[in-house]
Amino acid sequence: MTTPTLHGIIGYTITPFTADGDTLDLPALGRSIDRLIDSGVHAIAPLGSTGEGAYLSDAEWDDVSAFSITHVAKRVPTIVSVSDLTTAKAVRRARFAEQHGADVVMVLPASYWKLSEAEILAHYQAIGDSISSPIMLYNNPATSGTDMSVELILRIFNAVENVTMVKESTGDIQRMHRLQQLGEGQVPFYNGCNPLALEAFAAGAKGWCTAAPNLIPALNLALYQAVQANDLNSARALFYRQLPLLEFILKGGLPATIKAGLRLTGLEAGDPRLPVFALGEAGVKHLEGLLTQLK
Amino acid sequence: MTTPTLHGIIGYTITPFTADGDTLDLPALGRSIDRLIDSGVHAIAPLGSTGEGAYLSDAEWDDVSAFSITHVAKRVPTIVSVSDLTTAKAVRRARFAEQHGADVVMVLPASYWKLSEAEILAHYQAIGDSISSPIMLYNNPATSGTDMSVELILRIFNAVENVTMVKESTGDIQRMHRLQQLGEGQVPFYNGCNPLALEAFAAGAKGWCTAAPNLIPALNLALYQAVQANDLNSARALFYRQLPLLEFILKGGLPATIKAGLRLTGLEAGDPRLPVFALGEAGVKHLEGLLTQLK
Amino acid sequence: MTTPTLHGIIGYTITPFTADGDTLDLPALGRSIDRLIDSGVHAIAPLGSTGEGAYLSDAEWDDVSAFSITHVAKRVPTIVSVSDLTTAKAVRRARFAEQHGADVVMVLPASYWKLSEAEILAHYQAIGDSISSPIMLYNNPATSGTDMSVELILRIFNAVENVTMVKESTGDIQRMHRLQQLGEGQVPFYNGCNPLALEAFAAGAKGWCTAAPNLIPALNLALYQAVQANDLNSARALFYRQLPLLEFILKGGLPATIKAGLRLTGLEAGDPRLPVFALGEAGVKHLEGLLTQLK
Amino acid sequence: MTTPTLHGIIGYTITPFTADGDTLDLPALGRSIDRLIDSGVHAIAPLGSTGEGAYLSDAEWDDVSAFSITHVAKRVPTIVSVSDLTTAKAVRRARFAEQHGADVVMVLPASYWKLSEAEILAHYQAIGDSISSPIMLYNNPATSGTDMSVELILRIFNAVENVTMVKESTGDIQRMHRLQQLGEGQVPFYNGCNPLALEAFAAGAKGWCTAAPNLIPALNLALYQAVQANDLNSARALFYRQLPLLEFILKGGLPATIKAGLRLTGLEAGDPRLPVFALGEAGVKHLEGLLTQLK
Repeated sequence: MTTPTLHGIIGYTITPFTADGDTLDLPALGRSIDRLIDSGVHAIAPLGSTGEGAYLSDAEWDDVSAFSITHVAKRVPTIVSVSDLTTAKAVRRARFAEQHGADVVMVLPASYWKLSEAEILAHYQAIGDSISSPIMLYNNPATSGTDMSVELILRIFNAVENVTMVKESTGDIQRMHRLQQLGEGQVPFYNGCNPLALEAFAAGAKGWCTAAPNLIPALNLALYQAVQANDLNSARALFYRQLPLLEFILKGGLPATIKAGLRLTGLEAGDPRLPVFALGEAGVKHLEGLLTQLK
Repeated sequence: MTTPTLHGIIGYTITPFTADGDTLDLPALGRSIDRLIDSGVHAIAPLGSTGEGAYLSDAEWDDVSAFSITHVAKRVPTIVSVSDLTTAKAVRRARFAEQHGADVVMVLPASYWKLSEAEILAHYQAIGDSISSPIMLYNNPATSGTDMSVELILRIFNAVENVTMVKESTGDIQRMHRLQQLGEGQVPFYNGCNPLALEAFAAGAKGWCTAAPNLIPALNLALYQAVQANDLNSARALFYRQLPLLEFILKGGLPATIKAGLRLTGLEAGDPRLPVFALGEAGVKHLEGLLTQLK
Repeated sequence: MTTPTLHGIIGYTITPFTADGDTLDLPALGRSIDRLIDSGVHAIAPLGSTGEGAYLSDAEWDDVSAFSITHVAKRVPTIVSVSDLTTAKAVRRARFAEQHGADVVMVLPASYWKLSEAEILAHYQAIGDSISSPIMLYNNPATSGTDMSVELILRIFNAVENVTMVKESTGDIQRMHRLQQLGEGQVPFYNGCNPLALEAFAAGAKGWCTAAPNLIPALNLALYQAVQANDLNSARALFYRQLPLLEFILKGGLPATIKAGLRLTGLEAGDPRLPVFALGEAGVKHLEGLLTQLK
Repeated sequence: MTTPTLHGIIGYTITPFTADGDTLDLPALGRSIDRLIDSGVHAIAPLGSTGEGAYLSDAEWDDVSAFSITHVAKRVPTIVSVSDLTTAKAVRRARFAEQHGADVVMVLPASYWKLSEAEILAHYQAIGDSISSPIMLYNNPATSGTDMSVELILRIFNAVENVTMVKESTGDIQRMHRLQQLGEGQVPFYNGCNPLALEAFAAGAKGWCTAAPNLIPALNLALYQAVQANDLNSARALFYRQLPLLEFILKGGLPATIKAGLRLTGLEAGDPRLPVFALGEAGVKHLEGLLTQLK
């Protein structure tokens, strides 16, 4: 399978709700997607952690997935997160996304019970067999509870034909070194940990999956461009400039902070679903200050 | 609120599926419940980790919940796990269980995003406000990803009137000491970690929530009775006798090992749902040997 | 080699210094040893963590070791901690202790560099070969930086003839279960973690190595006697009674808290050596309150 | 106090022993120092982890310290590690090093007991007060057992006038980000974790403290020079080229692997002191292969 040419800044979308929190607000989703694309991101990734995919009903998930793909309309590639707790449900989502035109599906081995390596491999194999689109394997033990070793990731990469990309979010930069070394430079890896943006590019990451472009796309893109231009000094300066915001949105919880930031910048997308709180007043003020500094 | 008199051996039920894995097998669930009650367990707890609650559709969850409560028919108390990812869904489940006659509901603060203490407290408060039944707060960071400190547990216990029991499954016996100390002996706590069965009772646990009575109820009950009889030497001997089985079912994954053990003892309950594998052949043999030794 | 009959409450001694901190105060050490023996402890263990062994010069270590053994004068067994950073130095200390009449030597695999299992085994083998006294293997990763698995401990136990006892201080009670199971009940194990005093005895520990008898020997001994009398309810009550003090001396640092407690009870033993601080004023007040409650 | 201009590649020396391991081999130490300086390292650091400082007697430590400083003879700055378990001993070593001409002393808060923040600060203050030379604060929880937060490090940096540099070896690159952010770019930090060599420079580290220049000085220096030349692509390529060796020497234990590598390259420096083993035959072969590839 040809590795797709995903690279650069891959922007996560939020999932907007109406004021009462009960209903999807798809027009707002459309506006947020347009903003991201207009700002120059290289790809759009709906229904990830930032998109509160885990908090949606199946019907809502389908709506957001279909709407997002249609609205992006191939202006940039769309990467849909299709993770679900059972293999059957993840397969259903992967097929749904593919049928609606997703370019790539992203799969985190979400589970309630700790999975063995064989169970994880079989999970990816079943999803891979059910579609022909490329799959981005996603390792994020903090949310999935499952930490895949680099060795396991490479076993899956080699065993499942359409697993062609790896997204690493452990926060341990040495995982990327091992992917590069053990994968002999042939495994495209992407960074999913905002505070490692600089280091991941230094280590050779092809792209950065991040919710930050909802708020500071120009800085995110400038960092990538500095790396492309082989200008470490500029990249370092750009990284430290945006790091306080990257840390703030991560610590405050991405759905809460990004939705608050969108509101501050004129795009109403509602609040996160409970039990996740909206960003508190002090947090909103702090975020406003950070955004003002970065204008 | 009067603390209910839950005590002793609280048996988890599995959720049986038909051979193709697609459909619930409620008659088999009824047989497994009867077995547990006939063996002498002091309470029945459906839809927990062992019951693959996280892997069921909402409709299936409702079916298993209603069927279990009806089938137990007040022979012993029924404790229904109603955890869900959003507060709204957990509230819905709590109400459903209460309306169908559950004696207690159990709540794990399951979440995708890490929750703040305020978010966890509000989650419990919302569930508590929505029902009048007592709630068993459940701390199990290994499956929920959220570790509640003893201090937070006591804040919730004191703030939410119908949170009247605590189930601790961290595997750290000192948590129970702190519950006993800081709760001044007024917080009934229950053990959810099989390998700590002896120590938890030594520390003063009121009961032991466990899937083991599906396979070795007599030994589980005998351990509790030895503790009740203040006979530490017998309790220790009984504990070490059953410990290899307790460790085996935990390491092998409770749905897989308990379903395999039920099959070995003549009760067909199907296999776990993928991505969780059924117990492999070597595991089945080992389990068979352990069960034979304990007859 | 015949396993020695070490059991019960094994009391750690502090190492008293004169007021300026520069010099050993051996008469005070003698008084503290007499107190411990008069209170009924079953054995005396000098130069462990509590005894600030790591902070003494070699000459001081020799003085404390020889004095302690001579002063105990076989009233009870003496267990001397001979751990040192190099194998050669640990061998020297083991021989010194044996020549001066120690009944047992205790060995923690202290090291600066992380040691491989083969290196740890060779270290014990070299010490074992250099003396004929029994050795208590001591696992305490919090101070040594090296965590020996139960499997490694048993390999050493089986390979080194005079390693005949194991002291476990990880704080994980399941280690003792595994020692009991894998050792088939033939490996005498001792508890070195004060807050696990009850559970360790429940799990079958032969004894409890503790600094607490410097302050509350009657309660420590009563707990052991309740266990010996198979009276779990009394043991539990005695445990919870002394637990606040056990936790306080552990969290405050044993040399600081025990020396402060000795001073409060009329035995001046100086302060710990810097960088370890003496217990602060608030701590001393709290300790005084705890001791008053337990009188 | 003026911050010294330490930068670049700071090479650790080993401590050579004669064949029987009992005696220092100072002539070999001299040869290893000359090699390092001739290869172009920017500074020499004796008696660190690689130098087995923790395994030397006080007299040996003094000999190595005095010899190293004299032999370097100001060709480059000398940074002497003076860490010791008591404050008094660390002060003595700091004074000794200063009196013999050390340019900088390095201090790790080595301790047996876990130290409070106040104890750690007082330890640095006492050492700082005893000398006028600049101090490099060293954080390495893997060997010291004490992890200093960035906030504590900055408190010490601000409170103790001659603590003017920070060496970070946790392996967590985000610590360096925080040093840069919270220190507002005014805290010179150095990397002590070989596998983070590229990322630490990307993050703005002034230098890299490493044992690797004993074996591959040209590659170490080339990486630094590529960073100085703002050439990220070359730095990345140079980093991945040397990473297998950097990982090998770290995992194999620096004294064992560096001494083996020196022997392979014609400089006999003996073996590490027990309990640390010399590198085994397979390890030596592997190291030889790595060195051949990098020629």
